[in-house]
Amino acid sequence: MTNIQNDRLLKVLKGETVDRAPVWLMRQAGRYLPEYLATREKAGSFMGLCQTPELACEVTLQPIERFGFDAAILFSDILTIPDAMGLGLYFTEGEGPQFQRPIRTLDAIQQLPIPDPEQDLRYVMDAVRLIKKSLGNKIPLIGFAGSPWTLASYMIEGKSSRDFINSKALLYAQPEAVQLLLDKLSEAVSLYLRAQITAGADVVMIFDSWGGVLPEDAFLRFGLPSIQKVVDDVKKHAPHIPIISFTKGGGLWLNKIKELAIDGIGIDWTISLAQAREAVGNTKCLQGNLDPTILFTNPRVVQEEVKKILQQNTLQTSHIFNLGHGILPRTPIENVEALVAAIRGE
Amino acid sequence: MTNIQNDRLLKVLKGETVDRAPVWLMRQAGRYLPEYLATREKAGSFMGLCQTPELACEVTLQPIERFGFDAAILFSDILTIPDAMGLGLYFTEGEGPQFQRPIRTLDAIQQLPIPDPEQDLRYVMDAVRLIKKSLGNKIPLIGFAGSPWTLASYMIEGKSSRDFINSKALLYAQPEAVQLLLDKLSEAVSLYLRAQITAGADVVMIFDSWGGVLPEDAFLRFGLPSIQKVVDDVKKHAPHIPIISFTKGGGLWLNKIKELAIDGIGIDWTISLAQAREAVGNTKCLQGNLDPTILFTNPRVVQEEVKKILQQNTLQTSHIFNLGHGILPRTPIENVEALVAAIRGE
Repeated sequence: MTNIQNDRLLKVLKGETVDRAPVWLMRQAGRYLPEYLATREKAGSFMGLCQTPELACEVTLQPIERFGFDAAILFSDILTIPDAMGLGLYFTEGEGPQFQRPIRTLDAIQQLPIPDPEQDLRYVMDAVRLIKKSLGNKIPLIGFAGSPWTLASYMIEGKSSRDFINSKALLYAQPEAVQLLLDKLSEAVSLYLRAQITAGADVVMIFDSWGGVLPEDAFLRFGLPSIQKVVDDVKKHAPHIPIISFTKGGGLWLNKIKELAIDGIGIDWTISLAQAREAVGNTKCLQGNLDPTILFTNPRVVQEEVKKILQQNTLQTSHIFNLGHGILPRTPIENVEALVAAIRGE
Repeated sequence: MTNIQNDRLLKVLKGETVDRAPVWLMRQAGRYLPEYLATREKAGSFMGLCQTPELACEVTLQPIERFGFDAAILFSDILTIPDAMGLGLYFTEGEGPQFQRPIRTLDAIQQLPIPDPEQDLRYVMDAVRLIKKSLGNKIPLIGFAGSPWTLASYMIEGKSSRDFINSKALLYAQPEAVQLLLDKLSEAVSLYLRAQITAGADVVMIFDSWGGVLPEDAFLRFGLPSIQKVVDDVKKHAPHIPIISFTKGGGLWLNKIKELAIDGIGIDWTISLAQAREAVGNTKCLQGNLDPTILFTNPRVVQEEVKKILQQNTLQTSHIFNLGHGILPRTPIENVEALVAAIRGE
């Protein structure tokens, strides 16, 4: 089926047996790497880095070369879609991403266009093609997008938020307006992921970073169904491409998340791998879930904690080792090396 | 047993039947109230407000007079204990609480004193006595403290944190140091709550605001046992005083939290009241769990959402209505009025 040499990731996502858990880290191409900082300096800005395929490819490959991870993940940002919808994404040092034109009204939502990925997000597709070519079939490439609710909350807040007052109040007060936004985003995300697959992504992942801020009933009524629309559409067009979905803070809802037509479920560190397996049953691969702050200790502690997680994997074929959230800036590199060594049994 | 006129709160905590759910809101004396802002202006600073018993009493009573809540809660801050331990608490506008001298080493932890509440935190005890007297036995008074882990993480970080890198890394790398800190804090918190009870508190609550940032095994090994020590000691000295414990983000661990010798369990909005009841069984009162952002909609939506929660309470005697977290600054007052009216069936 696949001509990829290291196919551990693809195999576990299909329920096949592998010699050891495949490993990659969320944000593995990031600020903790000096070579990343050098390339970013060259790019001039974070968006400049995302929008220059050669540089996006360069940083995507850096952690592969350094650590030998079992998968590469496209270097990009989940907010490229809202940017392509016209919201005007910009970054201020230390402030995180912001939008020049947040969305707050039904009227504004109705006018939002659905981006054509090859037209409006061509720089992403060019990056996928270039990375795929550069990887030379050694390891699989993961494409990704934010979940509809995660994108919607950013688009309504206009920036990262602690309490999500604007987005959640709009959801409660005008559910039909937010539903329209979610529907548009489901379509946009699905087209975007399908285009990444056409461009060469071997796996796609949905980052539902803010699903966990919703009350249970709102997650089940709005958050999860909007992910389901994406998953069903992508699976219809690319049935052989594995999909991973990760709702941060979604441990309580795993028995609902497992109903999605996905192949892997990301979990954070607030639920143990063993308990997650109990909630999910044996049908899906689980991905996670080392607390990223453990990488601020020392190699000995990192190795012990990695082993604790590996020991919980009672099904040999069903675990992708990862962190429970993105690797943090200033993470010491020797601790990432210890993590990888522990998984390889070195 | 009690001579308190409105004893709904005390009754539900003892498993007795009441006509309707008692209601109070976390941070009910807060910045959304113009009368609070006026008193705070008078006090000059947040800590000045906490440290002047007359003013702390004044703001404690304000939401009772305005909304007729079924309980008052001492106006204070969870960080009074670390401040009394010598860390130098201060507040900068828009920055949240900070410590001049964060704790990072075993040596510093060993030297930390256990505050004597009547000596070192006399202003809190004076406030409790004054509030109790001013309430005139109309409604019960809730005393409170932060959980040991919540205080420890603040003391190690030195300020509020998003990722808790310092505190969690210290926990993983030097568990014996953090255990000592937690042991000292369990003792300090217990003495503090017992002193509040002696001064007049009818109920005490433990705010485990940051328990939910821990991995499951760390919560079960460090967070929960340190709460248990507090609970067991308070219960030993004041067996008739109900205790409520609230671990924000602890929905996954309710089946463990229920083993504490507490009377009430606080829950946030990420778990439904119905699901929490299933996890806890019929032995404890549940407190919560309206998403505070719902109070940014309008009275009609607030009333609908309050009713949805009330309808999940299948055991008439076992629910204290509250938010799932503190009420937010700028919450419109008319929506709080709508909340209270919905609970009263008005």
